[in-house]
Amino acid sequence: MFFLFLFFKDFAKDRYGVSVMVQSQQKLDRVLVRVQDLTPEKADQLIWLRARIHTSRAKGKQCFLVLRQQQFNVQALVAVGDRASKQMVKFAANINKESIVDVEAVVRKVEQKIESCSQQDVELHIERIFVISQAEPRLPLQLEDAIRPDGEGEEEGRATVNQDTRLDNRVIDLRTTTSQAIFRLQSGVCQLFRDTLTKKGFVEIQTPKIISAASEGGANVFTVSYFKTSAYLAQSPQLYKQMCICADFDKVFCVGPVFRAEDSNTHRHLTEFVGLDIEMAFNYHYHEVIDSITDTMVQIFKGLRDNFQTEIQTVNKQFPSEPFKFLEPTLRLEYTEAVAMLHEAGVEMGDEDDLRSACITHLYDTDFYVLDKYPLAVRPFYTMPDPNNPKYSNSYDMFMRGEEILSGAQRVHDPELLTERALHHQIDLEKIKSYIDSFRYGAPPHGGGGIGLERVCMLYLGLHNVRQTSMFPRDPKRLTP
Amino acid sequence: MFFLFLFFKDFAKDRYGVSVMVQSQQKLDRVLVRVQDLTPEKADQLIWLRARIHTSRAKGKQCFLVLRQQQFNVQALVAVGDRASKQMVKFAANINKESIVDVEAVVRKVEQKIESCSQQDVELHIERIFVISQAEPRLPLQLEDAIRPDGEGEEEGRATVNQDTRLDNRVIDLRTTTSQAIFRLQSGVCQLFRDTLTKKGFVEIQTPKIISAASEGGANVFTVSYFKTSAYLAQSPQLYKQMCICADFDKVFCVGPVFRAEDSNTHRHLTEFVGLDIEMAFNYHYHEVIDSITDTMVQIFKGLRDNFQTEIQTVNKQFPSEPFKFLEPTLRLEYTEAVAMLHEAGVEMGDEDDLRSACITHLYDTDFYVLDKYPLAVRPFYTMPDPNNPKYSNSYDMFMRGEEILSGAQRVHDPELLTERALHHQIDLEKIKSYIDSFRYGAPPHGGGGIGLERVCMLYLGLHNVRQTSMFPRDPKRLTP
Repeated sequence: MFFLFLFFKDFAKDRYGVSVMVQSQQKLDRVLVRVQDLTPEKADQLIWLRARIHTSRAKGKQCFLVLRQQQFNVQALVAVGDRASKQMVKFAANINKESIVDVEAVVRKVEQKIESCSQQDVELHIERIFVISQAEPRLPLQLEDAIRPDGEGEEEGRATVNQDTRLDNRVIDLRTTTSQAIFRLQSGVCQLFRDTLTKKGFVEIQTPKIISAASEGGANVFTVSYFKTSAYLAQSPQLYKQMCICADFDKVFCVGPVFRAEDSNTHRHLTEFVGLDIEMAFNYHYHEVIDSITDTMVQIFKGLRDNFQTEIQTVNKQFPSEPFKFLEPTLRLEYTEAVAMLHEAGVEMGDEDDLRSACITHLYDTDFYVLDKYPLAVRPFYTMPDPNNPKYSNSYDMFMRGEEILSGAQRVHDPELLTERALHHQIDLEKIKSYIDSFRYGAPPHGGGGIGLERVCMLYLGLHNVRQTSMFPRDPKRLTP
Repeated sequence: MFFLFLFFKDFAKDRYGVSVMVQSQQKLDRVLVRVQDLTPEKADQLIWLRARIHTSRAKGKQCFLVLRQQQFNVQALVAVGDRASKQMVKFAANINKESIVDVEAVVRKVEQKIESCSQQDVELHIERIFVISQAEPRLPLQLEDAIRPDGEGEEEGRATVNQDTRLDNRVIDLRTTTSQAIFRLQSGVCQLFRDTLTKKGFVEIQTPKIISAASEGGANVFTVSYFKTSAYLAQSPQLYKQMCICADFDKVFCVGPVFRAEDSNTHRHLTEFVGLDIEMAFNYHYHEVIDSITDTMVQIFKGLRDNFQTEIQTVNKQFPSEPFKFLEPTLRLEYTEAVAMLHEAGVEMGDEDDLRSACITHLYDTDFYVLDKYPLAVRPFYTMPDPNNPKYSNSYDMFMRGEEILSGAQRVHDPELLTERALHHQIDLEKIKSYIDSFRYGAPPHGGGGIGLERVCMLYLGLHNVRQTSMFPRDPKRLTP
């Protein structure tokens, strides 16, 4: 990156170079324009801009650059003339891709749309260019490879990037338009979840992640050294959100990490994921809870459809999928009904197994539905039994594109019945004493559920691996970066 | 709770009793009115209501109850007459405090305001009363003791409740008007933080809590068993939010738990707390970052002042404090300036120690200020040195009522300087390799900070222990409930 120009006097030598590291030496009174704001209205203006070198191509006395900011990019030109010397063009052409530069340039309207850039109607004629941060010459992965749809370009021998390479170099992989879109949409899911529930009168709570006893019976839990003793990482905020209901908060939600020490290496399991949790008191029937949750999901789907269409389209370019379909009101089937229906359609499954199938999606033309009334035996001990049939329970799962995204139920709010159920599940009563005691001082009937954020994003976008919607995924084999 | 009325025929026997457990037996078409909606406009209406028995007092042929929902309560009366028998009054009088009941009652306007209730203009004349959930007869703490201001009633021998009793029985302690107000305000802080930053173009990110290497050098970190290896709990989202900046997200925030294995038993330390974290790229000077953060804090202070006045007043009744004062723009002093000023005022402190004092608050009449330019030696290795004086750094703390709530800085975005600084701090380069590598592919100048949610709530409300603003606090001695 250092050049010696001993033999030529360079008239433009103050117009380019590598800047000293920005260490807050001065408060420059300089407005930096955003790439997305480069439209024909700015034509013929001299502007400053900071962006990455997305691509660069030298051609005789000129160098074409594509400058990128997030999902936006613009074509820029450095050409030998009265504002740029041969040396300056050479300097620009030699800047490593992904380096960050400050450029001063005139915005020019173009005759023919630049199809390869987000800003199609203008280009920049660069008059000054300074490197703010240099990228290494060799990138561990190329952005254009990383956004290539699966299979495309295979015959030309063009590369795609495998998942481990992506994740190992996540800081580059996250720069692709696809990644930018996925995680902006994820941010939107959280916001829609919270805003919808806040409007419904829910209160946000913060629950501890380090706990003294494994709340759900003891399996699949991570152990933490805690000073001279040991503790566990919470597998869910279950106990705490229920305590908040017993403490009169009436309707609560929380967004936070949950930890599962399951040695599962599937497309939909993570050892740490973000739980969107809901718990609420109800009056007489737990379907009041189902209605609140399904309405919240529908508000999320609508918000995404209406406000994140650009992001959805961007992801679709690389990973094509059908638009997400949902009904109002949400389809709710009983578990046994669904099993019978699937049986009729020729799909066999154990009567008391988890039920996962896309068949219902096709039968009812919806990508979102609820299965209600699961067999009691397959649910946690704190699940309320069905009042009419003790083999079943007041519990439900919710599905997106045929995969489970939420598990929930009416909870047992009576300490005697809860004790009986825990004993039936052979749970050590001593370990869940404080949980059971929470219900001894008056507890309203209540229910709720926990939603996996990464699964919601994956399935909404029709992706096929939950690692695509977790910024820094954790599984039994991956703890970095 | 079982009564035998063998000798009297009770004409009202269907009008009271203990309900069977609500197990979602039926969808009752019954509207339950909220206590806060009980106003004179509802006078003479017959309504249904679900609430807790807050207090109960039998007096001859009648029983006065106070019924409570969260911070709202209303007086109710069961009196022998054509709608209630002697037995029914006796039944009502014997319901344990904190039990949850359904009542059918006529709303009556009262002549004289009921000063002891939130609903002062009406009372309820109960015609039916059913227990939905029974509380045990003995409560581990009394709500009226739990909201008594310190010192008050001491001469009459009235109890207050100590902190451990509160925390051991948090499910009851959280029912007090003070607790309800604190945690509703806390929910508001999170919402204001996120809404302000979202408006400023920040994106919410989710960062992993289980990490493979202790990011900040290795001290004070909790160890987790992770399948056949071990891992750590993140002491901050530092690495990850910086990676997001290097990945072009430009401005990010996150809200989530952070873990500190410090064996500190002070009023302001927790081993697990909620971090409100910010990181952003800036153009030329890190004061752009300070301005964004201080403006965010000011928006939070204004939002609380304007929308949470009821909660602030409620907490003030038990814990009196002055309203929180802040200036616009926020006061920013250089660290050395502040030390010199305090020296002049007679307060001595080491030149390179953490500076904590309420003096500045008094000198400038503000409860919120920034100290800028800390000595480099007291800051983490990734802190950018001051370009003009290598003894100092581009770092800052923010204070509320004289106590630190945020620590932040411009970060070193150059991998060579970062390596040099890590070596100077004797940090094993191998362990932070992926962190340093994040900056090798072009990194914009950036800075940020981390705010402690519980401290912000504590100090805004003028409370004196961070355990009051953590629902389920964790410290070296407390892991439950």
